Amino acid sequence: MKMSFAQTMLQAAVQEAERLNLKVCISIVDMAAWPMAFLRMDGTPLGSIDVSQKKARTAVLFQMDSADFAKIAHPDGQAYSLENTNGGLTSFGGGIVLKSADGTVIGGIGVSGASSEDDVAIARVAANALTS
Amino acid sequence: MKMSFAQTMLQAAVQEAERLNLKVCISIVDMAAWPMAFLRMDGTPLGSIDVSQKKARTAVLFQMDSADFAKIAHPDGQAYSLENTNGGLTSFGGGIVLKSADGTVIGGIGVSGASSEDDVAIARVAANALTS
Amino acid sequence: MKMSFAQTMLQAAVQEAERLNLKVCISIVDMAAWPMAFLRMDGTPLGSIDVSQKKARTAVLFQMDSADFAKIAHPDGQAYSLENTNGGLTSFGGGIVLKSADGTVIGGIGVSGASSEDDVAIARVAANALTS
Amino acid sequence: MKMSFAQTMLQAAVQEAERLNLKVCISIVDMAAWPMAFLRMDGTPLGSIDVSQKKARTAVLFQMDSADFAKIAHPDGQAYSLENTNGGLTSFGGGIVLKSADGTVIGGIGVSGASSEDDVAIARVAANALTS
Repeated sequence: MKMSFAQTMLQAAVQEAERLNLKVCISIVDMAAWPMAFLRMDGTPLGSIDVSQKKARTAVLFQMDSADFAKIAHPDGQAYSLENTNGGLTSFGGGIVLKSADGTVIGGIGVSGASSEDDVAIARVAANALTS
Repeated sequence: MKMSFAQTMLQAAVQEAERLNLKVCISIVDMAAWPMAFLRMDGTPLGSIDVSQKKARTAVLFQMDSADFAKIAHPDGQAYSLENTNGGLTSFGGGIVLKSADGTVIGGIGVSGASSEDDVAIARVAANALTS
Repeated sequence: MKMSFAQTMLQAAVQEAERLNLKVCISIVDMAAWPMAFLRMDGTPLGSIDVSQKKARTAVLFQMDSADFAKIAHPDGQAYSLENTNGGLTSFGGGIVLKSADGTVIGGIGVSGASSEDDVAIARVAANALTS
Repeated sequence: MKMSFAQTMLQAAVQEAERLNLKVCISIVDMAAWPMAFLRMDGTPLGSIDVSQKKARTAVLFQMDSADFAKIAHPDGQAYSLENTNGGLTSFGGGIVLKSADGTVIGGIGVSGASSEDDVAIARVAANALTS
């Protein structure tokens, strides 16, 4: 995934968050889970920095959105403690796996700072900006 | 937040703990979660040192008391695994977010060593000493 | 420091690196060393991600450019082992402390991926974009 | 060592630093290197928090002042790499081992934020306040 794609997603995420009057952190990682781009909007709680990073990381490492990861990596799920591997992963929404047209995983985006629902919505808008 | 405020809170917390015949650790962090002051009362279990620090850190990083954080960062909450971000956070009471008169977060205080209820009560007395 | 300032610096750094035909990572942190913005140019070695972060962090934590920090935090310097505190710091150039007009530290920028000289030059251009 | 002794040392260190118009962090640890008390003076660089802690820890773990530790834990010393054990130690002055009248190690104090010479001087004043 190119840097320019990451920049496009950052811009789309910030615009959507501003439209919703929300403040978030946005982390974008490549297909190997290495950081590509990050932005923290003014006023976002500091704890969201690490959360956005872990959400993006979760999506790539297990090739699924963090909301889906939550169903298995939970005390009531099939793979409880999976969330404690890889330096700590996130079992709630806001991390989305990015795929190319042929389904290949090309990276992940994580959004944190608002409610899980809004984080997911913002990440979805950003991911769509990549493919449109 | 000034050092003198932190000293005032430490003193108030120790006095209240002594009044209740309890032994606690008290950690105070600034608005960016950096340590400002710490004190361990004689006889407090060693494990409470890190707990008091994490409680204060939790309160600042997510701008809420750790007792409120516990409701969402829990296997039964909306954001299970949030408690494992940022180096480990605390999903029980005793961390209180400190705000100025206009609502701006100026720091956090964490108390640990007694029951959660008593930890909260001591932290509340200390926080009130700041604003009175 | 506002997010828009960080974005301005990121853009200036990328433009300067492209002009020099170099590939770098750019990390920008606030006055408390918390990440504000990050960007990795296509083709930059992966090891530079953490280096750029640590350079920015070094500049803020000790309120000096990392090239100056190198003079004291070195086996031949006055404070050998200082570079091993705070999770690991960087004793070479590329981290620049950002100050407001009145000299207050407002953040730091770290550039990594090229030679130290080029990293410093790119960081300097970015820092100047902030004040111009 | 009692908490009241740590408080006495904190107060003495702050008074001496204010007299010298310097800003420092002061960390005091017990005979087992566990934190007892900490204070950060207004305006002290954030990097000094961890340094003051590591200085106090170094003094207790090897039962010598960090300035003496520096002579052996250095690329030119007899035990190079010793400074990289125990989570990172400090090979420069500012950490002082605290002993009772009979020579038993009872704790350590670490001061950081000024020059090594001034850090040592302030720590010495604080340690003397304990024994006087």
